[in-house]
Amino acid sequence: GNEDAVTFLRSVFDLVIKEGVERVKDASTPVIDFKNPEELEQILDLKIPMQSSSHDQLLHYCEQVFKYSVKTAHPHFFNQLYAGLDPYGFAGQVVTDVLNTSIYTYEVAPVFVLMEKYLLRHVRQLIGYEGGDGTFSPGGSYSNMLGMNLARFNKFPQVVRVGMRGLPRIVAFVSSQSHYSNKKNAALLGIGIDDVIPVATDNCGRMLTSDLKRKIEESKEEVSILSNVCLVLLNVLYHCVINYQMLISLWFTIMIRWNGAVPFLVVGTCGTTVLGAFDPVDEIADICQDNNIWLHIDAAWGGGVLLSSKHRHLCKGIHRSDSVAWNPHKMMMAPLQCCIFVTKHDSVMKNCQSIQVPYLFQPDKTLYSPEYDIGSKVIQCGRKVDVFKLWLMMKAHGNIGLESRINKAFDNAQYLAELVKKTDGFKLVCDVSPECTNVCFWYLPKRLRKLEWRLDDKAFCQKVAAVPPIVKEKMTTSGSLLVGYQPLAGMPSFFRMVVINDELTKSDMHFVINEIDKLGQDI
Amino acid sequence: GNEDAVTFLRSVFDLVIKEGVERVKDASTPVIDFKNPEELEQILDLKIPMQSSSHDQLLHYCEQVFKYSVKTAHPHFFNQLYAGLDPYGFAGQVVTDVLNTSIYTYEVAPVFVLMEKYLLRHVRQLIGYEGGDGTFSPGGSYSNMLGMNLARFNKFPQVVRVGMRGLPRIVAFVSSQSHYSNKKNAALLGIGIDDVIPVATDNCGRMLTSDLKRKIEESKEEVSILSNVCLVLLNVLYHCVINYQMLISLWFTIMIRWNGAVPFLVVGTCGTTVLGAFDPVDEIADICQDNNIWLHIDAAWGGGVLLSSKHRHLCKGIHRSDSVAWNPHKMMMAPLQCCIFVTKHDSVMKNCQSIQVPYLFQPDKTLYSPEYDIGSKVIQCGRKVDVFKLWLMMKAHGNIGLESRINKAFDNAQYLAELVKKTDGFKLVCDVSPECTNVCFWYLPKRLRKLEWRLDDKAFCQKVAAVPPIVKEKMTTSGSLLVGYQPLAGMPSFFRMVVINDELTKSDMHFVINEIDKLGQDI
Repeated sequence: GNEDAVTFLRSVFDLVIKEGVERVKDASTPVIDFKNPEELEQILDLKIPMQSSSHDQLLHYCEQVFKYSVKTAHPHFFNQLYAGLDPYGFAGQVVTDVLNTSIYTYEVAPVFVLMEKYLLRHVRQLIGYEGGDGTFSPGGSYSNMLGMNLARFNKFPQVVRVGMRGLPRIVAFVSSQSHYSNKKNAALLGIGIDDVIPVATDNCGRMLTSDLKRKIEESKEEVSILSNVCLVLLNVLYHCVINYQMLISLWFTIMIRWNGAVPFLVVGTCGTTVLGAFDPVDEIADICQDNNIWLHIDAAWGGGVLLSSKHRHLCKGIHRSDSVAWNPHKMMMAPLQCCIFVTKHDSVMKNCQSIQVPYLFQPDKTLYSPEYDIGSKVIQCGRKVDVFKLWLMMKAHGNIGLESRINKAFDNAQYLAELVKKTDGFKLVCDVSPECTNVCFWYLPKRLRKLEWRLDDKAFCQKVAAVPPIVKEKMTTSGSLLVGYQPLAGMPSFFRMVVINDELTKSDMHFVINEIDKLGQDI
Repeated sequence: GNEDAVTFLRSVFDLVIKEGVERVKDASTPVIDFKNPEELEQILDLKIPMQSSSHDQLLHYCEQVFKYSVKTAHPHFFNQLYAGLDPYGFAGQVVTDVLNTSIYTYEVAPVFVLMEKYLLRHVRQLIGYEGGDGTFSPGGSYSNMLGMNLARFNKFPQVVRVGMRGLPRIVAFVSSQSHYSNKKNAALLGIGIDDVIPVATDNCGRMLTSDLKRKIEESKEEVSILSNVCLVLLNVLYHCVINYQMLISLWFTIMIRWNGAVPFLVVGTCGTTVLGAFDPVDEIADICQDNNIWLHIDAAWGGGVLLSSKHRHLCKGIHRSDSVAWNPHKMMMAPLQCCIFVTKHDSVMKNCQSIQVPYLFQPDKTLYSPEYDIGSKVIQCGRKVDVFKLWLMMKAHGNIGLESRINKAFDNAQYLAELVKKTDGFKLVCDVSPECTNVCFWYLPKRLRKLEWRLDDKAFCQKVAAVPPIVKEKMTTSGSLLVGYQPLAGMPSFFRMVVINDELTKSDMHFVINEIDKLGQDI
């Protein structure tokens, strides 16, 4: 019965506080008790039974989940663009969970609809938009997709009814270090990855606007014979027998190629995934204005700086964009998922994405205006409530508290970069100070430290690139910390330290340097 | 500090149990304490402050959220395709929340990656697929989108690189009562709403396969001069000055129209949104097989019957489909969001949706095989963990418990339909017994009961259609129950009662009839 269920819930809550809130903050416990997939599958009893399980058994399963999961709220988890646990955000999430509703109509989510409208307006004001619209979304990739979809609609509204076949070739421009979602989204939207044109960056990952200008001009005049030949071959391969339809399709593709493309979107990034670079938004906005191109800003990671009067200059010009993606679940420490998409345009979401749905958005409702049925203008139908956890956090900390959270992360990252500069065996990827709270560096074990540093020497680069996977394995099996690594732009693999958690101190930064050196100096 | 935060969390947990778990089950409390948007905005203190707020203040905000939110776990909430609260699902959600991770790599979500792989295999086995792949997704609309995307890729893999401009015109077929997401998804994917061809249904909402066959043949030979003329006009309107590019584009569009289309997808529905109809999957599968078309089954709502040996015959032939969308957060009562997409094809997700992402899916990882980095093959980057709540529920109830949950909902719906049949003023929309747990009926106040029942009489239909909005307003302001309504297929608005919650009894069904009659007999 219900009483039993309540007793069970109370036991789970106790476990959640003990394991999920208290123990994870103890730096002396491991970040992960690593088992490989084969071992872990042996340990976990995954099978779905015929009969019900006892509460003790279920609690045991929950304990196992805690034991073998990664503690992302542990002070030494630096592996992703999220970390830490905001207790107010978590509390808001639990309240949302138990109320278990979908935020598509005011009828079933009155409080959350109002709150979402309010908070999205607040975010637009932070950005500097005057009017506009927006939605929470299930991820930064999804938000970038919305930007791409609205940009296309803005130039060619017929796409909704007739699809891409009613359009000339359209092309988007993104920096070569922008997030991979831009490519995946172009594939999904029927635009194609080939029409996402990469723009060169400087050494620290910022888009070169001179290259953007040049690529836009080129795209308008492009005669790409090679790509057309490839396309023909591809089609022949996939279809073997060429039929009449296919010939027409190919002919059209070639004609369009020969007549250039229509630039419809530039994605600027505020806080790139690896280096944390901020593209020069103001300069990009000038180019977009001159060419009548939609400017979407992917601030999923770096958008947190909007809360800080000290650091928001990094996004200078963001108010001139057409849309912005920002994930408060990253730098702001809101619980996952908490992602915001906003546009400065009042009715583009409605015009592009609404269709009549009388079973859900009844036009003859008597108690409130249809504008409060906000689900009508998004692509999702059912949508999880992601606003309350963020709102409660913002109430709890106030603007001042959130600003100091962001500033502290930047201070710690700056301190870590200084440590990296002066510690033997460590070398910053971007020689100037990091723009964001990513600190990227190579690490060299003792045996490599005497070699000359030459990124143009392939053999040397291979030696450098072989280090992070080994150190990462040692981190993981010891459980002492987790830091990610990757190659980038032809450079050998390096570590990406991400500083987010506002409970970190300078001594945690020393810990990172010392621990990596301890694990790696003799490999 | 942390101790304070824990004290706060414990207070919130107490509130959650009191208001969210215990009080919501009390049928004598209102389902909703309704305030219109203007009133509610006055009551709620939405503003984000500069300074932090006290724990007492934050608790007060949480109390307000409970007070003014809709109680979807209340026994008399019948408004959506979700209802009730499974305490084990909720417990699993809270554990997932506090662990706060993203399910893209084994590195940061080892337990959940294994669990998801296991559970998706389990679901594929339930469906009758032998191999295959799958993912959890943020909604049924999103799952249907995945089906559409993979179907297109399966026929024209070049779409990923060159987009729709490398393809002939492609068309999808859906029943006229299928979910609206199919249209929204076609717009998003650059296919266009016009190329989603509606197939007629019988009186109870099931797809007519004779019409499907005919429409497929027609599409291949279609010469739609009218639609081309419209297209040309549209383009002219949007662009005013016709340029060379646009002319080529229009020419191509016309040529393709004149040469027919390539059918690439049929969406069959198991449990339509309004009537709960099950399309004849086996017959549809025959047609898809003959025409080499991808068959996607939208079982978001009706998929629950797969758990019941008594009712799973409704999905007969589902194992012959290429992909399935199923939302356990609907009939199965898992907490929102809990949505599954599976395909019978082993590598289509990987081939269609993977690109190289070395910062996240490092190919030189040493501790496990890259196949465990399941984020690589989905479109999202960060993805919320939705598996554990479902897995814990399945462990808690066992197959037998879940089957009896589904059977009970069907029994209650059947009982309600019988009551509707024999109660004065109530009339079933579909005269035979409902196929699913939706019970759709017209309600007539006393003054309309003497009129002859004539759906071909426009004046009569207007009178019938005017009833539900008024009754709905009375339900909402009294808070006694919530039931949705809508028009459909030219018929005047009717109520859609959705039976899900397994704590309902036959007396709750009597309550629904009596309460609607009480609210509406004299209007």
